[in-house]
Amino acid sequence: MRIESDSLGKLEIPDEAYYGIHSLRSVNNFPSSGEKIHPYLIKGFLQVKLAAAETNYNCSLLSNEKYEVISKAIKELITETESCIEGISNSIYEKIIVDPLQGGAGTSLNMNINEVIANTALKILGKELGDYKSIHPIDDVNLSQSTNDTFPTALKIALINMLRELQDSFALLQNSLQRKENEFKNVIKIGRTQLQDAVPITLGQEFGAYAQAIARDRWRLYNAEERLRSVNLGGTAIGNSVAAPKEYVLNVNNILRKITKLPLAKSEDLIDATQNHDVLVEVHGIVKAGATSVIKICNDLRFMSSGPQGGIGEINLPPMQAGSSIMPGKVNPVILENSIQICELVKSNDVLISNLVSSGNLELNAFLPLIAHTMLKSFSLLRDSNINLAEKCINGITANVEKCKNNLINSTAIAAFLIPTFGYETIQRIVKNAEEENINFITALSKSKLMNEDEVYNFLIRELGLKIE
Amino acid sequence: MRIESDSLGKLEIPDEAYYGIHSLRSVNNFPSSGEKIHPYLIKGFLQVKLAAAETNYNCSLLSNEKYEVISKAIKELITETESCIEGISNSIYEKIIVDPLQGGAGTSLNMNINEVIANTALKILGKELGDYKSIHPIDDVNLSQSTNDTFPTALKIALINMLRELQDSFALLQNSLQRKENEFKNVIKIGRTQLQDAVPITLGQEFGAYAQAIARDRWRLYNAEERLRSVNLGGTAIGNSVAAPKEYVLNVNNILRKITKLPLAKSEDLIDATQNHDVLVEVHGIVKAGATSVIKICNDLRFMSSGPQGGIGEINLPPMQAGSSIMPGKVNPVILENSIQICELVKSNDVLISNLVSSGNLELNAFLPLIAHTMLKSFSLLRDSNINLAEKCINGITANVEKCKNNLINSTAIAAFLIPTFGYETIQRIVKNAEEENINFITALSKSKLMNEDEVYNFLIRELGLKIE
Amino acid sequence: MRIESDSLGKLEIPDEAYYGIHSLRSVNNFPSSGEKIHPYLIKGFLQVKLAAAETNYNCSLLSNEKYEVISKAIKELITETESCIEGISNSIYEKIIVDPLQGGAGTSLNMNINEVIANTALKILGKELGDYKSIHPIDDVNLSQSTNDTFPTALKIALINMLRELQDSFALLQNSLQRKENEFKNVIKIGRTQLQDAVPITLGQEFGAYAQAIARDRWRLYNAEERLRSVNLGGTAIGNSVAAPKEYVLNVNNILRKITKLPLAKSEDLIDATQNHDVLVEVHGIVKAGATSVIKICNDLRFMSSGPQGGIGEINLPPMQAGSSIMPGKVNPVILENSIQICELVKSNDVLISNLVSSGNLELNAFLPLIAHTMLKSFSLLRDSNINLAEKCINGITANVEKCKNNLINSTAIAAFLIPTFGYETIQRIVKNAEEENINFITALSKSKLMNEDEVYNFLIRELGLKIE
Amino acid sequence: MRIESDSLGKLEIPDEAYYGIHSLRSVNNFPSSGEKIHPYLIKGFLQVKLAAAETNYNCSLLSNEKYEVISKAIKELITETESCIEGISNSIYEKIIVDPLQGGAGTSLNMNINEVIANTALKILGKELGDYKSIHPIDDVNLSQSTNDTFPTALKIALINMLRELQDSFALLQNSLQRKENEFKNVIKIGRTQLQDAVPITLGQEFGAYAQAIARDRWRLYNAEERLRSVNLGGTAIGNSVAAPKEYVLNVNNILRKITKLPLAKSEDLIDATQNHDVLVEVHGIVKAGATSVIKICNDLRFMSSGPQGGIGEINLPPMQAGSSIMPGKVNPVILENSIQICELVKSNDVLISNLVSSGNLELNAFLPLIAHTMLKSFSLLRDSNINLAEKCINGITANVEKCKNNLINSTAIAAFLIPTFGYETIQRIVKNAEEENINFITALSKSKLMNEDEVYNFLIRELGLKIE
Repeated sequence: MRIESDSLGKLEIPDEAYYGIHSLRSVNNFPSSGEKIHPYLIKGFLQVKLAAAETNYNCSLLSNEKYEVISKAIKELITETESCIEGISNSIYEKIIVDPLQGGAGTSLNMNINEVIANTALKILGKELGDYKSIHPIDDVNLSQSTNDTFPTALKIALINMLRELQDSFALLQNSLQRKENEFKNVIKIGRTQLQDAVPITLGQEFGAYAQAIARDRWRLYNAEERLRSVNLGGTAIGNSVAAPKEYVLNVNNILRKITKLPLAKSEDLIDATQNHDVLVEVHGIVKAGATSVIKICNDLRFMSSGPQGGIGEINLPPMQAGSSIMPGKVNPVILENSIQICELVKSNDVLISNLVSSGNLELNAFLPLIAHTMLKSFSLLRDSNINLAEKCINGITANVEKCKNNLINSTAIAAFLIPTFGYETIQRIVKNAEEENINFITALSKSKLMNEDEVYNFLIRELGLKIE
Repeated sequence: MRIESDSLGKLEIPDEAYYGIHSLRSVNNFPSSGEKIHPYLIKGFLQVKLAAAETNYNCSLLSNEKYEVISKAIKELITETESCIEGISNSIYEKIIVDPLQGGAGTSLNMNINEVIANTALKILGKELGDYKSIHPIDDVNLSQSTNDTFPTALKIALINMLRELQDSFALLQNSLQRKENEFKNVIKIGRTQLQDAVPITLGQEFGAYAQAIARDRWRLYNAEERLRSVNLGGTAIGNSVAAPKEYVLNVNNILRKITKLPLAKSEDLIDATQNHDVLVEVHGIVKAGATSVIKICNDLRFMSSGPQGGIGEINLPPMQAGSSIMPGKVNPVILENSIQICELVKSNDVLISNLVSSGNLELNAFLPLIAHTMLKSFSLLRDSNINLAEKCINGITANVEKCKNNLINSTAIAAFLIPTFGYETIQRIVKNAEEENINFITALSKSKLMNEDEVYNFLIRELGLKIE
Repeated sequence: MRIESDSLGKLEIPDEAYYGIHSLRSVNNFPSSGEKIHPYLIKGFLQVKLAAAETNYNCSLLSNEKYEVISKAIKELITETESCIEGISNSIYEKIIVDPLQGGAGTSLNMNINEVIANTALKILGKELGDYKSIHPIDDVNLSQSTNDTFPTALKIALINMLRELQDSFALLQNSLQRKENEFKNVIKIGRTQLQDAVPITLGQEFGAYAQAIARDRWRLYNAEERLRSVNLGGTAIGNSVAAPKEYVLNVNNILRKITKLPLAKSEDLIDATQNHDVLVEVHGIVKAGATSVIKICNDLRFMSSGPQGGIGEINLPPMQAGSSIMPGKVNPVILENSIQICELVKSNDVLISNLVSSGNLELNAFLPLIAHTMLKSFSLLRDSNINLAEKCINGITANVEKCKNNLINSTAIAAFLIPTFGYETIQRIVKNAEEENINFITALSKSKLMNEDEVYNFLIRELGLKIE
Repeated sequence: MRIESDSLGKLEIPDEAYYGIHSLRSVNNFPSSGEKIHPYLIKGFLQVKLAAAETNYNCSLLSNEKYEVISKAIKELITETESCIEGISNSIYEKIIVDPLQGGAGTSLNMNINEVIANTALKILGKELGDYKSIHPIDDVNLSQSTNDTFPTALKIALINMLRELQDSFALLQNSLQRKENEFKNVIKIGRTQLQDAVPITLGQEFGAYAQAIARDRWRLYNAEERLRSVNLGGTAIGNSVAAPKEYVLNVNNILRKITKLPLAKSEDLIDATQNHDVLVEVHGIVKAGATSVIKICNDLRFMSSGPQGGIGEINLPPMQAGSSIMPGKVNPVILENSIQICELVKSNDVLISNLVSSGNLELNAFLPLIAHTMLKSFSLLRDSNINLAEKCINGITANVEKCKNNLINSTAIAAFLIPTFGYETIQRIVKNAEEENINFITALSKSKLMNEDEVYNFLIRELGLKIE
């Protein structure tokens, strides 16, 4: 054990630990949620630290020696974080130990990052961990910075990167739906309003409508990136750049842009950008709009696949796992259920984010850690859910053409289509006849000699503009 | 126009107005929501004022003359409010003019009540409206009171009364469902888990399960009343009874109990009772639990009635209005949709109430007016929705026995029931055969010579313990 | 009483009623919420009907005589609705009687509109009300239309018009805040993070940050209009234009654009546009982002104005009404409280809208009536609240310069500002001295001979870049 | 690698894995949330399996040999789970690998449990893992059971156990607040309504009011346990006990009660208990009510501790970690912020649970896995947060008596207290004088010769019933 100290006293730190006293205090102070800081946030934070180090060096606030070793340390840690993102190794979480639900506006995460960078640098220098005389977590690594400008900036970097992946997942889902739109373009079926038989439609048109909704989400997310570009790095504690030299403030965001390759820009009003996070409410609201579309689609697919024999049965879902231990052959819509659950979680996350953002006070929002964690979780889960939904469900859906035809032809749904040809009165009379005699509309129609079943079906094909071989 | 004045200056009041300057300032200060103060809240408030007047008189704080005319005025206003509750006349809203969304912790409503009582009393005395020398809205009507004890107390009176009616509406719904449980007790149908065919059940059992859920709500609401009995009348501004004599504080709640005939009791800690409204979150949460049950039931009924020909079609809903202008004969589940909407409103109201209750500060929650309005609205709407649902939908539901039988018999749902008789392996083989040959399970079973259709149906009737003639 | 009939039977209608049997059935079917259909929705609906009538006439589906009288009737009704919007008369609600919380996807409102138009036309023609042989609510007024395309189109017209007014209200609020930014530009005060003394700031900078946040809302709303332009008129029941001739479908939106003077466009995929309402979730989410900013600002102002003597007391709010009946001279932040309440209502409305939009099924969302009502209510209330907030609160705020200075100068908040000049170690030592000796930082600093109070204050003025005379 | 197969085909399973093919399919099917199944749910599930095994043995459905080894295996796994609960080892998560956000109504978790039990039993028998001929996950371990009765029963066991711990945490918090109530009973300060100076109060009374609110939560949770006692074990798939012998159904819950030592009882209507989860909405609503109280208290403490010099400063929080890297000596209310965040998460979890419960369909709620996970997460986090709040914040709070006195004595808050002695008119005149002359009320009062500062302070002490030495 080594001993570290801060303004509150001393703590024992394991010898091999890259974190330091501030990280450990945080771990001791807050209950464990069992969750981890999102790796994109860690990476974004490290990039912010790299930009700050380079700018400090350029402004002669940091010596060449310190800059070299600090930037080397950060780059090593970025590589380690990336290998976590790629699912190769979780070792970064032996260093970044603070809980995502931490109080304190993110100071704990900032200090954890600072300490880990400092100790990594010390290691590179062949020094003892914790020997901060050579490289100091605050005086060197945190130089010219505050939690209050580095955390929101790191968050926006993470969000933009996640947003792009989320957008890709909506694109994948859209493509998946469009393939089905094409595949099912000749499958005539009943359209339903208020769950009641309405007018004929094709299964392809239904998937086409889903694809349109998802295309809007993709477009929305594309536009949303612009909302996240404006960052407050350089504003330090409250946005008026206390403790940061003018030259640093002027340049740090340019360097950050270069490092992240993202179109970031310094906020016009750093005080505003430090305290107000309405943009996060806006962007998560956009993501939530996508979640509502996905829920609607999944519910439709659950409805249309219900059965298989005793329900609607118009489509078949690909079986993904045995559905029941006591009902042989049962296959359940588990992927749809999973996506619905995740989308409902996104919806409740939206409530949380709105509540936390509106709870900001004066120069800061102390609840940014949970806002950040919740947003990144929504983005990650929805991204994974969309990919899953496309690949494990939509792609494998097949049409039950016969059931589609039967559900249609047995229904009065076709009546409305015939009104322009035979008039409302005539059709309404046939509808009533069918009801009174308890026969299908199509049978009543045939009996009326106006059209027989084949003529009706061909008529519908013509009306819907289908070319069926 | 008459002129009234307060600490901010003077305002013109219409000659015939029973309200005064404080009411008018409130109307001018806040945007109009287009909604009205709930009449049960008005009545509760008037009862509180009556109790205060009587107690003040008993404590010799109010002369006999003043007490007589004030109590007479209040009783007249209670009668007028009751005729609003009964739907006879809305005249009370010419007097109670403040908006339910008022800021200010309810001071506006308290002052509106005070002014209207004072002017009604003046009218009885043959005095000019606004001539407060004889009867003063604050010095006489508000004597020994504060908004901060009268408003929460009035709210609890209103809530208890509404809760009882809400409970009755759940009882009505429960009875309605139980009648259907009995009516449908012999209608065998397919049970569905995850919307997929599962094992046989009766339609009566399904309605029986609904009735059980609603019975729990009824019981919950019955218990909830006890949560609302504790009131803070006598605590005045912050609960330490500033400006109210000890004798008054000791007696006022007994008198209020006599007037309201409700089992009210003085809070053990008046300071707590003035500032903390967790009880309202608790009680509305209970009401919300009922809303989730109603949504589930309504969605089930929409599912089972979907069709009529091209869907599930197991039950028929009573037609309530023409469903479509362009689709002849279409009947939609409008009552179910209406109940779902109202229950979703109750759910979002629950979010609002939780947010507002947790936003209280120190000795008071300034947001009580909207909390009160939202709770009473949830209660009223859900009460009306339950009655509507029972009378206009559930009571008129009929079973489509033939469709129930077909959906069941065509399905593998019956397979699980046969496992104990024939073994998992055998049944699974028949299920697979049916799939491979694309025939119904029942046909495959018949071909296997184990049981034919009639034998299966009778077997199911036996297994489900039905006595069918 | 006159008698009208529909597919369910007959009903008595008051002789003088402009509504008909479908409207009355709706009123009988659904509980009363006590609220009214938003007048902007009525006006939008009437404009849709006018566009349909003109297009039907152009397509020779409607005779010149019928078109003339129908369009005259609609224009009269639009005028009557506008006089409701302007607060002149509520007479339109004697005609439009259906409840906003109606079930049935809006059929009730559509039929109410159809019936009122038909009867108004009959009146113009000198016919009896209810004598639909000349002008029929469905066959003539609803010709080529469905509820499912007219209602969403009417809603978007209403929303765009409301959105513009909401945008104006944010502009007003922004201007109001900017005037204070300028007025308070030289008022130095303490900045607070996590409600704890942090570094100096000016009161003007704080109001400037608020103005920036509100400016973002204004800009968001400006952009949001584009999201609402795409309408599904011509799609009829499910979007495939059943019962509407091609020529009609092609032209009706152009005519609607001319009538409304709004940049509306026919949706590319009418089936999608009929069933998916993610756009409404998106737009309300944007409005909600505004609500979170307003809440944050209002809470800051409540904090800074708390006192007046026993609290923070840095600003004074204009008194709007007597705050208390038993505490003389008490002035409460009632306008702020009212705005917070309305913004919390907008937040819970967002939950409701997301839930209802994600509850759509297949070709339709049956819950559009409550979605529409809730959105329009959020927009109206927030518009009124913003105007109120600007005019009745922000504009009248004054700075308590002395208190601002005292709160600053007594605090260690100034320490951070001095670090670049004297170094972290030195300043930390003085901070500790102040704590140990239980004296103000400024006193400890003076004792250290580094700077006296005046020098510090002037140093701060220089650092914050202020020009104070 | 070993090979296992199910109805969908074959999969490779690591040789040493205790889970089997169904578990692995689930892991492959659903995105990873990065979270774990709550250990209390695992333990509850294992106890359910133990009860089923014992009952099956008693009913002669399971041989003595199988029962012995299965129950031994389960007991070993319970011990392993308990060592996870105690924080000793996470090894159970090498076996229980499915994600809490799984689709499929919990079948994945049930199968994971079944497979792990079977393989543990095989290990005990010295057999190969995966050699299910001796002990089969479904035929033996899942005998007479379904996911749909075991999962909800396991959940209720977990919830009752967590509820008791949550209750204890509220008790701890209550005690903590009551100690401060006593400690601060003589600290006179200003009471504030709507954040404005109101009437005097003691700091002890404020903490007493908090303790009362928390006491109500404790009591609510105590009562809530009764709501969770009724379980549906024995109902199997949909509640009508398909595939479970009568004797088993009759006895299994008695045995479960013996094993868990919890007062569980078989539901009166197993069909209802399988499909309806309103009880979970109710119980989480009760927990949420507690969260709103904690938020209110934390916000009050943040307000009263704001400063230290430039704010309210009436109380001092114990410093827990360095608050800022650039502001020396800054101490932030991090524990309060953490508790607020957790309570806001509980509030948004409540939305999620309500949405998922109301989304149940017919005989089952497919979303129970996320409902379960969310509830247990709310309970765990709130329990930890309460303990943290008590131990790391409340217990260390000290009063700043001088600041309390100054805030009071400088304010007009004392005026209301003097009204009964000197009359409203007199006091209002002095209030106005103070305002006009811009002096404190106490100074104006002294000048009026009615009372001087000492007399007032002693008067207040008397009025508030304090005994101060």
